[in-house]
Amino acid sequence: MRDLSADTRLLSLNAATVRKRWNLSEIIDGCARHQIGGIAPWRDQIADCGLDKAGRQIRDAGLRVSGVCRGGMFPGRDAASRKANIDDNIRAIDEAVALDAECLVLVVGGLAEGSKDLAAARAQVEDGIAAVLEYAKINAMPLAIEPLHPMYAADRACVNTLHHALDICDRLGSGIGVAVDVYHVWWDPELEAQIARAGANGQLLAFHVCDWLVPTTDMLTDRGMMGDGVIEISKIRGWVEAAGFDGQCEVEIFSAENWWKKDPDEVLKTCIARHQSVV
Amino acid sequence: MRDLSADTRLLSLNAATVRKRWNLSEIIDGCARHQIGGIAPWRDQIADCGLDKAGRQIRDAGLRVSGVCRGGMFPGRDAASRKANIDDNIRAIDEAVALDAECLVLVVGGLAEGSKDLAAARAQVEDGIAAVLEYAKINAMPLAIEPLHPMYAADRACVNTLHHALDICDRLGSGIGVAVDVYHVWWDPELEAQIARAGANGQLLAFHVCDWLVPTTDMLTDRGMMGDGVIEISKIRGWVEAAGFDGQCEVEIFSAENWWKKDPDEVLKTCIARHQSVV
Repeated sequence: MRDLSADTRLLSLNAATVRKRWNLSEIIDGCARHQIGGIAPWRDQIADCGLDKAGRQIRDAGLRVSGVCRGGMFPGRDAASRKANIDDNIRAIDEAVALDAECLVLVVGGLAEGSKDLAAARAQVEDGIAAVLEYAKINAMPLAIEPLHPMYAADRACVNTLHHALDICDRLGSGIGVAVDVYHVWWDPELEAQIARAGANGQLLAFHVCDWLVPTTDMLTDRGMMGDGVIEISKIRGWVEAAGFDGQCEVEIFSAENWWKKDPDEVLKTCIARHQSVV
Repeated sequence: MRDLSADTRLLSLNAATVRKRWNLSEIIDGCARHQIGGIAPWRDQIADCGLDKAGRQIRDAGLRVSGVCRGGMFPGRDAASRKANIDDNIRAIDEAVALDAECLVLVVGGLAEGSKDLAAARAQVEDGIAAVLEYAKINAMPLAIEPLHPMYAADRACVNTLHHALDICDRLGSGIGVAVDVYHVWWDPELEAQIARAGANGQLLAFHVCDWLVPTTDMLTDRGMMGDGVIEISKIRGWVEAAGFDGQCEVEIFSAENWWKKDPDEVLKTCIARHQSVV
C-alpha cells in the first residue's frame, strides 16, 4: 500500500464537502492553499462558476480533477424524458472533458417517476449508458458507474452493488468502469472479490472515502469524517490498491449538521489529517 | 399464485405493527376479532404477557404463530458476552417451542461493541448460530436468518443479503433457513435467483411484507403499509410461492409517525385490505 502518512497530493476534495460555505472558486483556492492534490466539482458548482473560469482556475492551481459529479439519472417516464436525460449526459461529458477530469461519475438514477418497476429502471440505465458511451470514448472520457448504497435504490441509483455495476460494464465493453465509494459498499460481503475483479479488468476509476456513523440520523446528509465511523477504510484501500488502483483518494462528505457548518479551512485540515492517519 | 383477494387466514400480524397502543393480549384479541390467521409476537411482549398466558390465549384464538421475534444478536466484545448471547438464544428457542411457532426469526446482530471488524462479526454470527442449531433441531424449532437491509449492517445485522444468509445455511446444514422480508431485500438484483435457490433447498421459512416509502424519513421507524411505497410486493410473493413457500404473509410495520399512532382496529382493517389487494 502507498504510504499516505505525509501525503496531500493523493488526496482529492469532492467539492460537496465544503459546498455550504464556499463556492467553487473558493474551494479551488482552499485546495491550493492546503496543498491538496485534486478536486471533484459538481456540475451545479461548475455552472455557477462558469466552465471556462473553473477550468482555468483548476489548471492554474495545479489540481487534478479526480472526477466530475455527475452524469447519470437515466430513467424517465417516457421516451422524451429519457432522451433529455441522455442529452444532459452528453453535456456532462463535454464539461468533464473541458476540465480534463479523470472520469465522469455516473449516479445512474432510481425508479422512473410514478413507477415501481425496478427491472425496467435498470434496463433504462443500461440503455442510457450505452447511448452515451461511444461519445464518451471518442472524447476519451471514462465513465465511472458509482453503485450507491441500497437505501438509495428507489430515488437515486438502482445500481447498488459493485457486482451489478461490473456486470453492466462487462456487457458494455471498454470506456466504462466503477467508482468505489466506501460509504456505499462497505457492507458488501462480495466487496473484496468484486474490487479484485474490477482491477483485473482495468475498471477501477475512482476511490471515494468518508465514514458510516452509528447511529446515522439522516439517510442523505449524515456522513462521517474518515475515522469517526465504522468503515475499515484502510483495509478497503488496501484491496483497491492491490487491484491496481493508483489514483487519488477523494473525500466526499455530506454532513448538514456537522461538517457543513464548520469553517471550511478547518474541514480541509481535518480531511488531510485523517487522510494521513486512517485512510 | 394463491388467491388472497378474500383471504384473512394466510395473513399473519407481526405484533410490532400495533405495539404502541395494544399489549400482546389485546393484539391476540384483535387478530381473533378480525379473523386474521396468525401472529408473530416479540419476546418483550411475550415476557410482559407471560409465556404461559400468551400461549394459551394464542391457542384459544386459533392463531398460527408465523414466527417469534427474535433470536440472534450473536456478536460480542468478549467470550463471556458471546456466551450470554448464545444462552439468550437458547431461551428464545424454548419460548418459540412453547408457542408452537413455525420458526424463530434471527436478527443476527451487527458489529461487536467498539469493533469495526465486519468479518469478525460475521464469523461470530455463524459460530453463534452453530452453537444453538443442534438444540433447535432437537426441539424441532426451525431457525430463520432474516437478512436485514444493508443500512443496518453496523448495528443490527451484518447478514444483509439472501445470498449471504443462504451461504451460511448451506454451511450449517439442516434445521435452518431464511425469512424473506421485502423491506430488506427488494433492491437486490439477485433476489429472484436467491429465492429460487432457497426454495429448492427447503429454506424458505417466512415471508414478511410492508413497503418502502419514498422518501423514507427514518431508517428504523418509517416503514410503509403495503401499497404505499415502491416495492413490487406481489411480484416477490409470486417468486416466493413459485419456489414452494406456502406459509403466511406476515405484516411487519414500524411506523412511529403514522401507523403506530392510529387506532389499531383501523390498522388491522387496512392490513387486511392491502393483503387482499396488493400483497
